Amino acid sequence: MRILIINGPNLNLLGKRQPSIYGDKSFDEYIHEIQKEGVHVSVYQSNVEGEIINTLHDAKADGIILNAGGYTHTSVAIRDAVAAIEIPVVEVHISNISARESFRHESLISPVAVGCIFGFGMTGYELALDYFLKLKK
Amino acid sequence: MRILIINGPNLNLLGKRQPSIYGDKSFDEYIHEIQKEGVHVSVYQSNVEGEIINTLHDAKADGIILNAGGYTHTSVAIRDAVAAIEIPVVEVHISNISARESFRHESLISPVAVGCIFGFGMTGYELALDYFLKLKK
Amino acid sequence: MRILIINGPNLNLLGKRQPSIYGDKSFDEYIHEIQKEGVHVSVYQSNVEGEIINTLHDAKADGIILNAGGYTHTSVAIRDAVAAIEIPVVEVHISNISARESFRHESLISPVAVGCIFGFGMTGYELALDYFLKLKK
Amino acid sequence: MRILIINGPNLNLLGKRQPSIYGDKSFDEYIHEIQKEGVHVSVYQSNVEGEIINTLHDAKADGIILNAGGYTHTSVAIRDAVAAIEIPVVEVHISNISARESFRHESLISPVAVGCIFGFGMTGYELALDYFLKLKK
Amino acid sequence: MRILIINGPNLNLLGKRQPSIYGDKSFDEYIHEIQKEGVHVSVYQSNVEGEIINTLHDAKADGIILNAGGYTHTSVAIRDAVAAIEIPVVEVHISNISARESFRHESLISPVAVGCIFGFGMTGYELALDYFLKLKK
Amino acid sequence: MRILIINGPNLNLLGKRQPSIYGDKSFDEYIHEIQKEGVHVSVYQSNVEGEIINTLHDAKADGIILNAGGYTHTSVAIRDAVAAIEIPVVEVHISNISARESFRHESLISPVAVGCIFGFGMTGYELALDYFLKLKK
Amino acid sequence: MRILIINGPNLNLLGKRQPSIYGDKSFDEYIHEIQKEGVHVSVYQSNVEGEIINTLHDAKADGIILNAGGYTHTSVAIRDAVAAIEIPVVEVHISNISARESFRHESLISPVAVGCIFGFGMTGYELALDYFLKLKK
Amino acid sequence: MRILIINGPNLNLLGKRQPSIYGDKSFDEYIHEIQKEGVHVSVYQSNVEGEIINTLHDAKADGIILNAGGYTHTSVAIRDAVAAIEIPVVEVHISNISARESFRHESLISPVAVGCIFGFGMTGYELALDYFLKLKK
Amino acid sequence: MRILIINGPNLNLLGKRQPSIYGDKSFDEYIHEIQKEGVHVSVYQSNVEGEIINTLHDAKADGIILNAGGYTHTSVAIRDAVAAIEIPVVEVHISNISARESFRHESLISPVAVGCIFGFGMTGYELALDYFLKLKK
Amino acid sequence: MRILIINGPNLNLLGKRQPSIYGDKSFDEYIHEIQKEGVHVSVYQSNVEGEIINTLHDAKADGIILNAGGYTHTSVAIRDAVAAIEIPVVEVHISNISARESFRHESLISPVAVGCIFGFGMTGYELALDYFLKLKK
Amino acid sequence: MRILIINGPNLNLLGKRQPSIYGDKSFDEYIHEIQKEGVHVSVYQSNVEGEIINTLHDAKADGIILNAGGYTHTSVAIRDAVAAIEIPVVEVHISNISARESFRHESLISPVAVGCIFGFGMTGYELALDYFLKLKK
Amino acid sequence: MRILIINGPNLNLLGKRQPSIYGDKSFDEYIHEIQKEGVHVSVYQSNVEGEIINTLHDAKADGIILNAGGYTHTSVAIRDAVAAIEIPVVEVHISNISARESFRHESLISPVAVGCIFGFGMTGYELALDYFLKLKK
Repeated sequence: MRILIINGPNLNLLGKRQPSIYGDKSFDEYIHEIQKEGVHVSVYQSNVEGEIINTLHDAKADGIILNAGGYTHTSVAIRDAVAAIEIPVVEVHISNISARESFRHESLISPVAVGCIFGFGMTGYELALDYFLKLKK
Repeated sequence: MRILIINGPNLNLLGKRQPSIYGDKSFDEYIHEIQKEGVHVSVYQSNVEGEIINTLHDAKADGIILNAGGYTHTSVAIRDAVAAIEIPVVEVHISNISARESFRHESLISPVAVGCIFGFGMTGYELALDYFLKLKK
Repeated sequence: MRILIINGPNLNLLGKRQPSIYGDKSFDEYIHEIQKEGVHVSVYQSNVEGEIINTLHDAKADGIILNAGGYTHTSVAIRDAVAAIEIPVVEVHISNISARESFRHESLISPVAVGCIFGFGMTGYELALDYFLKLKK
Repeated sequence: MRILIINGPNLNLLGKRQPSIYGDKSFDEYIHEIQKEGVHVSVYQSNVEGEIINTLHDAKADGIILNAGGYTHTSVAIRDAVAAIEIPVVEVHISNISARESFRHESLISPVAVGCIFGFGMTGYELALDYFLKLKK
Repeated sequence: MRILIINGPNLNLLGKRQPSIYGDKSFDEYIHEIQKEGVHVSVYQSNVEGEIINTLHDAKADGIILNAGGYTHTSVAIRDAVAAIEIPVVEVHISNISARESFRHESLISPVAVGCIFGFGMTGYELALDYFLKLKK
Repeated sequence: MRILIINGPNLNLLGKRQPSIYGDKSFDEYIHEIQKEGVHVSVYQSNVEGEIINTLHDAKADGIILNAGGYTHTSVAIRDAVAAIEIPVVEVHISNISARESFRHESLISPVAVGCIFGFGMTGYELALDYFLKLKK
Repeated sequence: MRILIINGPNLNLLGKRQPSIYGDKSFDEYIHEIQKEGVHVSVYQSNVEGEIINTLHDAKADGIILNAGGYTHTSVAIRDAVAAIEIPVVEVHISNISARESFRHESLISPVAVGCIFGFGMTGYELALDYFLKLKK
Repeated sequence: MRILIINGPNLNLLGKRQPSIYGDKSFDEYIHEIQKEGVHVSVYQSNVEGEIINTLHDAKADGIILNAGGYTHTSVAIRDAVAAIEIPVVEVHISNISARESFRHESLISPVAVGCIFGFGMTGYELALDYFLKLKK
Repeated sequence: MRILIINGPNLNLLGKRQPSIYGDKSFDEYIHEIQKEGVHVSVYQSNVEGEIINTLHDAKADGIILNAGGYTHTSVAIRDAVAAIEIPVVEVHISNISARESFRHESLISPVAVGCIFGFGMTGYELALDYFLKLKK
Repeated sequence: MRILIINGPNLNLLGKRQPSIYGDKSFDEYIHEIQKEGVHVSVYQSNVEGEIINTLHDAKADGIILNAGGYTHTSVAIRDAVAAIEIPVVEVHISNISARESFRHESLISPVAVGCIFGFGMTGYELALDYFLKLKK
Repeated sequence: MRILIINGPNLNLLGKRQPSIYGDKSFDEYIHEIQKEGVHVSVYQSNVEGEIINTLHDAKADGIILNAGGYTHTSVAIRDAVAAIEIPVVEVHISNISARESFRHESLISPVAVGCIFGFGMTGYELALDYFLKLKK
Repeated sequence: MRILIINGPNLNLLGKRQPSIYGDKSFDEYIHEIQKEGVHVSVYQSNVEGEIINTLHDAKADGIILNAGGYTHTSVAIRDAVAAIEIPVVEVHISNISARESFRHESLISPVAVGCIFGFGMTGYELALDYFLKLKK
């Protein structure tokens, strides 16, 4: 089983800054640790909206975990890409977006995602992986 | 570890109607099957807003999984109860509420929940359980 | 033919207060008078939102006449219950809700009801009964 | 007793198109069938907003049944005409307007009508007739 | 000097109904009384939006006094006709529209009128006449 | 003089939790202390919207002090009950609701209450009692 | 007959600036010219909202013509003063406020004025005078 | 192939006024010039909303080109007529409506039209004709 | 204990007009009567927004009771003054502002006041005094 | 004559997916077929907003046909680029955007485009080409 | 070069209160320190909206620096005064108004100011001075 | 001291087009001229949102001057990048954005910037430089 994680803008800063808070592990190391047998997880990150769309178009995977960062609330184009492809997409956010500024309350991507996992910190990625594993069984 | 699942209005119909779609297992049977070692899961359902509040107040658990059904979008009172207690609450919805009518897009409960899991069908309850298990480790 | 009338909050005050206006007949007496051959009409009233939902779930009837009172404008949960059951529901309001305060202009229940009868006073219940009788023919 | 039915724009198409759905009876034939003893029902239809106003002004009837079609949601002028005359007006819509596009949810005419009957198909006209008959008794 | 008064929907009822309030003079008689030397005033009334537009197009006058009644708040088409012709148009309303329902607060016609006179009862027409007389001097 | 205090959802937690903040006196003890000669104060609390309505209907008192908690902002049904009874109702909130989240800024109950006392902590109940005492003189 | 004209903020600049446009007559000279027999017109101007209120309270006149300038759209306090006094107030604006920025479209004063005259330039004051003269006859 | 062009309010002024801008050709002459072999184009214009609806109902054509002028933004009734008939309708506007006042930005007709051509001046009618010709091939 | 009452625009009319309603006592006489031992109450009234701000800045008191009249709904500047000073401010309104026009529903001052007392007539000032007395104990 | 077609995000999927629906011709092949004598058409596609802006800046053409896909509704930056260049831009959409989700109803680009062609499928590009050809004549 | 600084409501408190935060220099001393050769800076402060308008009307300066405090968001009258005079006005705010409450996000004055400088603390006044100096060169 | 200027979309056109207006100096030449001793100013421009984010992440500077062009009003992602880095960011706009279309009135970046300088043309960049120099002292 192949899972592709796509991280959007500013998520490259995870693990690079504020190590006292987030630890000094990079996102790749974190993902490495939580990998499970029978699943191959690859990670893509970009700050460029169009490159995220390109990656969605070109993806070869059984499932995609998408955290579109700030584009979540503004990108009709990424939404259209998620709707256009056949691979199921799970939307993840590290923070609880409904508890932040009002412009973060609505996600343009949620309506076309299979499901949404918000607010569990990094653990949200693991829960999304769990979902794809359960789906396969 | 004790987990309390609270299901709100109309969720008593799960498994009772439309067996060709939802199967003929009751929600309790379903929960029984997915139970894991070291976790005791109990289930409470009510159609009465105030009884859900009573149950939140009186809960003795390490975690609560709350699917408040239609009260999700209208109940300031349940939101206040979730905010008032110290037990962490995970919000679950079976359907992808952001893909339905606009009055279902905003949850009054999300901002005070630990995290949100929407749209994965019954599997959402399992993911919430997984979260509490990971939290404990 | 069995018809169930469900009256929501504050409708228990009909006939009890202001007899010079509403007369001194109780709602039950009123319903008794307008009953027609071949129809059995029963009446349920509650001020508790969840009990109205319970009654909708448990109803054994060929048609339901629902006047949800103040819950009309706030209850997603009652709406979901009306949508979930198979018995046709006609929505009745004694007053002309569109001529009152703006928060009474929208009914959450109307979109899932068979039809709506507003503003005819007590006569609205009779018109709803007439509808079910015509439907049966 | 004289009842005047006024049908607004596009309602002349009833019974003329799609006979497999609506049957091949014209609206006039339909009204003829449901007529009751002691009631004279006449029917007026126009696609012109101002002619509907003229007809309201000139009406000689004990009651008017008005289905203003698409003008329902846009015509302050028809509303003013209904409010200006002394004959009671019942508003009827064939479809359940609250279950359609949002611009059909608000009727400018409802606040000045005696009462509203929405969503019962052609039967709505009969219920309105019943109302005037009950009123007379 | 030729002045054309155009009265919109329901304004034909002035002087015909409620004589105890409005008196038993027709609008034409009223206008006749207030006529001044050197001014020829003609009056046109229609309940049909398009006929008001036709009359605006065909007008031969030095000034137009327009009371569009209920079309004031809904008719982009009349607004466009006022903007398209070269004769100056003064907008008059008998009642104080800003003190009535909120849907009467905005006039689509005001922005393209020379000026607006609201709330002075029938006297508003006289003030509009006065304006054209002062303009001429 | 009989005064009935009705406390809505979550207000049963007052004095039970966080004794370091609210002290270890229950609400009943607090009310006992502030009682004044010639006034009998009784207290009712419920988390169930409909039971608050029942209590309003059945009240035998010269005045009611109502803190509807979270139902303040969502309950048309409680508003209707307050408007339907003849006993004067004073609305109290412990916190300054206008300084909290925007969904707490509007109270559905305020327009039908005699008056409103917001933001004075527990002292608000005393001020409401003072009002009824002054009214009586 | 005594008429008091109250001009609000920035209206002291009329006639002082841009003489090529507005002429070099002061507002007082202008008013002097249009005075009619049997009417005593006095003029008050202030840029201070509260002084306009003071002047409304202290006015001894048979009619007031009020151009509240920029306070028109923001001053609940001036509105309340107009509503509190018994002298009839006519609202005048030199420009056509509905053809300017959207924040100028609504006047807080209009609903409590006798009537409104907008967009006729300085001539608007004359029309208001005419109104009071006609009223007296 | 028969194409019917329906022009709404004020479009009768095209070519009649401002010949220095629009030229001195009437709309009919213009249409005559652009006619193509195998297509019969007829033109209907009315300022009356209801007559446009009548014309849509009675049309015998392979395609309709509709420029509803000011009714575009206010007429639910014309929208319903377009949706009710089976002839494909192309919506044309001479000006770029999205670059004008905000109340012209939304067309009620667009959602039920085959397609929309806005802003190309008179050329828009030719493009609509081209469309029907390409469709036929 | 020194308490300063600040009354805003139009409140100078209390007791001066409509003596049959408000009695013929001035506000000062009223305040004199309700004064209690150990409290010195002074009263300031102004119709000028900036003078109210000046008075707030210069106040020497243990508590301020502010009824900002019409400025309540429009004055960010008074709000800022209340927030800037250290003396606690209680907001009072004589009428129940939530039961009046919608522009009176929101108070800019409430969020920075200690508490709010609305709708109790003149008695509201006494309740505010009571609050400061209880606070002192 | 040189025409540049710029296609925005997800439009690279045209002809690549769902060949049973869209056929197996690529967009380039399609454009090749509809080319006309005397016109050189080139095509550019990108999923990156900024690259579309770069292409607009660098374009050497007599006309541009722009289908900005999902950026249509969110990109002030593309709008500014269209407004900044001197080449006329025609906006095309394959689908009827006004008949889809409400966030697709407004195009930020339309107000600065020469004209708009929506809803004609691939034929829209041909109509835009026709426009530039007619313009040249 | 003469520069006039106008400070609005509550800005007289700068340097008077909270010396540990703002220091114990008065605003005048601060301005004295930052004065530059060839520039004469004078300072005016008032809490009265109308006096700020008077000062704008009467100003004799080459440039005005205006911090209208709380009137920024509510004063159409000050905006009109800024627009009416010929001296260029720069708008300064000490705090970053877009990062505060939503009612502070929009300035009525900004659209008629030359430019805006927000959020730099007291340094904002220096930057505005710099601007006028650069302008002069 | 190192200052990085980041210019967003379409700002590469400055100085390249319309030399009669903007002169024939490039932005780089302009910046070169205004450089001051002890400050090293570098300039980066991109039309790609994600590259602006990359540049913010990688910046080595004591201060950043950001003119995000059209992304100002739509980019949550750039806002998040500004908030994530520790270098202070000053927001500059050449035009007075509050005097343009309403969608340009709100900047998503302002709330996370140190301060804002709008409307001073190219001089705005100099004022921002001045700020950083004053900050350093």
